[in-house]
Amino acid sequence: MNSTPSQAGKGLPVADIVAQLGGVLCGDGSVTVLRFAPLERAQSGEVAFLARAAQARLLRDCRASCVIVPEGFDEAQGFAAVIQTADPYLYYARLSQWLQQLQTPPSSRGRHASACVDASARVADDAWIDAFAVIEADAVVGPRASIGAGCFVGRGAVVGADSRMLARSVLMHECILGQRCTLHPGAVVGADGFGYARDAQGAGVRIAQTGRVLIGDDVDIGANTTVDRGALDDTVIGDGVKIDNLVQVAHNVRIGPHTALAGCVGIAGSARIGAYCFIGGGAGIAGHLEIADHTVIGGMSLVSRSVRQAGHYTGAFPLDQHQNWSANAAALRHLAQLRERIRRLESQLGPAASRQADAGKAGDPSARSTTAHNQP
Amino acid sequence: MNSTPSQAGKGLPVADIVAQLGGVLCGDGSVTVLRFAPLERAQSGEVAFLARAAQARLLRDCRASCVIVPEGFDEAQGFAAVIQTADPYLYYARLSQWLQQLQTPPSSRGRHASACVDASARVADDAWIDAFAVIEADAVVGPRASIGAGCFVGRGAVVGADSRMLARSVLMHECILGQRCTLHPGAVVGADGFGYARDAQGAGVRIAQTGRVLIGDDVDIGANTTVDRGALDDTVIGDGVKIDNLVQVAHNVRIGPHTALAGCVGIAGSARIGAYCFIGGGAGIAGHLEIADHTVIGGMSLVSRSVRQAGHYTGAFPLDQHQNWSANAAALRHLAQLRERIRRLESQLGPAASRQADAGKAGDPSARSTTAHNQP
Amino acid sequence: MNSTPSQAGKGLPVADIVAQLGGVLCGDGSVTVLRFAPLERAQSGEVAFLARAAQARLLRDCRASCVIVPEGFDEAQGFAAVIQTADPYLYYARLSQWLQQLQTPPSSRGRHASACVDASARVADDAWIDAFAVIEADAVVGPRASIGAGCFVGRGAVVGADSRMLARSVLMHECILGQRCTLHPGAVVGADGFGYARDAQGAGVRIAQTGRVLIGDDVDIGANTTVDRGALDDTVIGDGVKIDNLVQVAHNVRIGPHTALAGCVGIAGSARIGAYCFIGGGAGIAGHLEIADHTVIGGMSLVSRSVRQAGHYTGAFPLDQHQNWSANAAALRHLAQLRERIRRLESQLGPAASRQADAGKAGDPSARSTTAHNQP
Repeated sequence: MNSTPSQAGKGLPVADIVAQLGGVLCGDGSVTVLRFAPLERAQSGEVAFLARAAQARLLRDCRASCVIVPEGFDEAQGFAAVIQTADPYLYYARLSQWLQQLQTPPSSRGRHASACVDASARVADDAWIDAFAVIEADAVVGPRASIGAGCFVGRGAVVGADSRMLARSVLMHECILGQRCTLHPGAVVGADGFGYARDAQGAGVRIAQTGRVLIGDDVDIGANTTVDRGALDDTVIGDGVKIDNLVQVAHNVRIGPHTALAGCVGIAGSARIGAYCFIGGGAGIAGHLEIADHTVIGGMSLVSRSVRQAGHYTGAFPLDQHQNWSANAAALRHLAQLRERIRRLESQLGPAASRQADAGKAGDPSARSTTAHNQP
Repeated sequence: MNSTPSQAGKGLPVADIVAQLGGVLCGDGSVTVLRFAPLERAQSGEVAFLARAAQARLLRDCRASCVIVPEGFDEAQGFAAVIQTADPYLYYARLSQWLQQLQTPPSSRGRHASACVDASARVADDAWIDAFAVIEADAVVGPRASIGAGCFVGRGAVVGADSRMLARSVLMHECILGQRCTLHPGAVVGADGFGYARDAQGAGVRIAQTGRVLIGDDVDIGANTTVDRGALDDTVIGDGVKIDNLVQVAHNVRIGPHTALAGCVGIAGSARIGAYCFIGGGAGIAGHLEIADHTVIGGMSLVSRSVRQAGHYTGAFPLDQHQNWSANAAALRHLAQLRERIRRLESQLGPAASRQADAGKAGDPSARSTTAHNQP
Repeated sequence: MNSTPSQAGKGLPVADIVAQLGGVLCGDGSVTVLRFAPLERAQSGEVAFLARAAQARLLRDCRASCVIVPEGFDEAQGFAAVIQTADPYLYYARLSQWLQQLQTPPSSRGRHASACVDASARVADDAWIDAFAVIEADAVVGPRASIGAGCFVGRGAVVGADSRMLARSVLMHECILGQRCTLHPGAVVGADGFGYARDAQGAGVRIAQTGRVLIGDDVDIGANTTVDRGALDDTVIGDGVKIDNLVQVAHNVRIGPHTALAGCVGIAGSARIGAYCFIGGGAGIAGHLEIADHTVIGGMSLVSRSVRQAGHYTGAFPLDQHQNWSANAAALRHLAQLRERIRRLESQLGPAASRQADAGKAGDPSARSTTAHNQP
């Protein structure tokens, strides 16, 4: 994907795109595109994508020079170029990165005069250190890595090749960031975990947090997100993990590869999240539990016990008009008692209750056993 | 509201206050006040306000030189000066800003020697750039704007006239901040949205986030709050929006004018919040939905569907003693089954059930239809 | 706990540890330890601890030079040294701090050349000011305090003796930090509270926030946590309070001594939290209420009314498989109606209902009164 700056002004030829990213080209490969735009307002010089054939009507007003469509979709008419591919959304992701790289002014590699880099730090020649960055003793900054304005890299920390620390992000001492990672602005990796013993008077006595944070390759950490270092062992974030903004990852948490955490998630200490999980925004995960690979947790749900079987789990109840909610909330405080009252009514009515119920639901053989399971 | 520094030491004459902010003055307009204080501990030289006539008893121990009271409230005795106004709380807000301005030492306008300002940036002569601020190429800083210590203004970003970026806040490339806005310390505006496609192996492929954040006039963004840039389109924050601390606003969200978001709110991608809404602290708003103008969402509620009609909506249930809660939580896991058991009991008892119920609630014509609505 | 750097390489003699921290030494006091390790993988030169006698099996594979065990526990065999103490976890906390101090390279006390310190600030000779820190007019930095890289100490703010501000943390003007406190990276203390009046058109008018934040001794404030200054009065954080990451403490909140707030907690304005409380992660506390001393609030619970009696309170419901949850959530929207339907069934069945119920629960005298309480 090497391109000269002059390409940026002229745009990228569609033939080059297909040569690099695959797909089937229909039309004129010499057409060039500068950037992506939404289907409904794309203009000449822009490229758009049709995620699913069902959205075909959006093509009607599209004036893009090139559209990316699903394999076998033949209804894209009147475009200078069309690319068919199995997954247009994935194609969009890959091409968007390439176009962005062309549009971004080249940053002069090197070290800003104001940066404060310890003499013992090992910084690759082609790394980029921006204004007011601080790199402490024995830290390592790998090839083509960039350390943004005002970033802090602590003593002995490691920033892997091609990783980016954006403005004001912090990597504390001895923590390790893999390759091609991004720390978004304000992210803090490696602050002390929240660990205290209580003395005889009930005051907290701080436990030294001597573990590190180990972050794999291709990991993104969102703006103002915090990932704490371990107490004795390390906090470990697997390859390909994506973490959104304002997420809290406590000490000694382990997150398996390619799991994604949406914004405002909180994970308590020593929880172990599997691989390929998705944790919805605002969800909370209690400490010292495990979540199986490929688990989906709904937004704002509380995970208070281990989830040992993959699936889709939800906990937060949807809102209601305040008056309705208020009546239900009052009843909810007596729900166990309501259950007891139902039980009494059933027992008063005798065995006829279940007989009649079965009669009314003849086609449902599970009805009896479900009810039985429900009765203590 | 121009005042010489000497006024600060002497205080502000009440006659000047009324001339500027309105209201009816009773008493001596030459009395001066230095600052606000709560009614119950205000002393000479201070001004206090009585929000509602019902709180009149708080005036008994008040020794303020001036009190601001509701229109027509004549029970404020023994004060050197009294100001009557339709909305004392609003009057307090306006006067508090004025007094604060007088008490704050004038900051020397100009550019701190350590600031790192790109030669192509356009900075107004009367803007103020503090220590270790970074202003990148082609950025614009408007008249009387202030860029605090350690702030970052990215390439091509715009800070409107009279806006303030406080310590360590970040405005990423190409984002636009209107006039009279405040970014509180640590706020990050314009970080990448959380957008990924999945490849065939399930790994996330980053989607370039090429939209901007457009922020209107008179907007406040709280400390360590994050507002992400759009993917293709922009994230848009309307005029007069007020956002508290630690709020996450995801990519392509649109927030209408004068809406307020309390602390720890999370808004997922592409949600559209109307004007004049209030979103309570810790609430979560799912992606791609709409909330009508003038809607109030209760604290910690989850909005998982669009709210098309203005009103007050709530979702989070109040806490209970752990033992009670635990019994109710267990019953809640079987609530749908409890409903089914009630249905069976009703069907066993036959039509008499609803007859008798109606007899017991003769005055309530809605009883039958409500019950009917509830029965599938 | 003064130690020469040479001790660090050689480790700390167990006899010195017992002399300083107490406990009963069995074995060889001349044995030295360098650091803690978990029981299951501790090696020679390391010290481990057994929190409870019930975990004794973990000692089998432990190769630590020294283990710390509960008083009277005599099964620790084959270790060069054993320390018996009433609370091994507390002993671990104290010793871990000491060992960490020995392992940490001594930072050169003094002021980094790049730091920007106002001439009127009073900085103790043995305080440490790191690169790109900003200390404004009239601020005070006490003995042995450290101000990390890129920190901001506002006009007139006070940092107490032995307190640490870590990288990029912010203490705004006039706020006061006690002794031996830690502000973790990115923490913001003293930003404006979220206070607005509404004008006649519904637009927010900012209320000047002129109170301060007063923080006691031995307080820790987590990474990217925010504590707002008061509106008229101060926000007050008591001695020994420990606050985790990404917590929001609003204006005029008061937190009693030795209370701990886990990650992602949000506390609304003017709430008063007692002493020795524990607020679980993600919990939300509404404004203007009180929580009694020694109260425990479960994670993600919403406190919407005052808690006047100490105890353990919970509010968030645990998650369930999505399909089950979905059925229960639908039923929950009609819970008050379900209660009404139960009531009708009971009234249709007449007084026999409660008689029979009592007969079935003869041993439970509370059954009747509980039910009665439940019926409006």
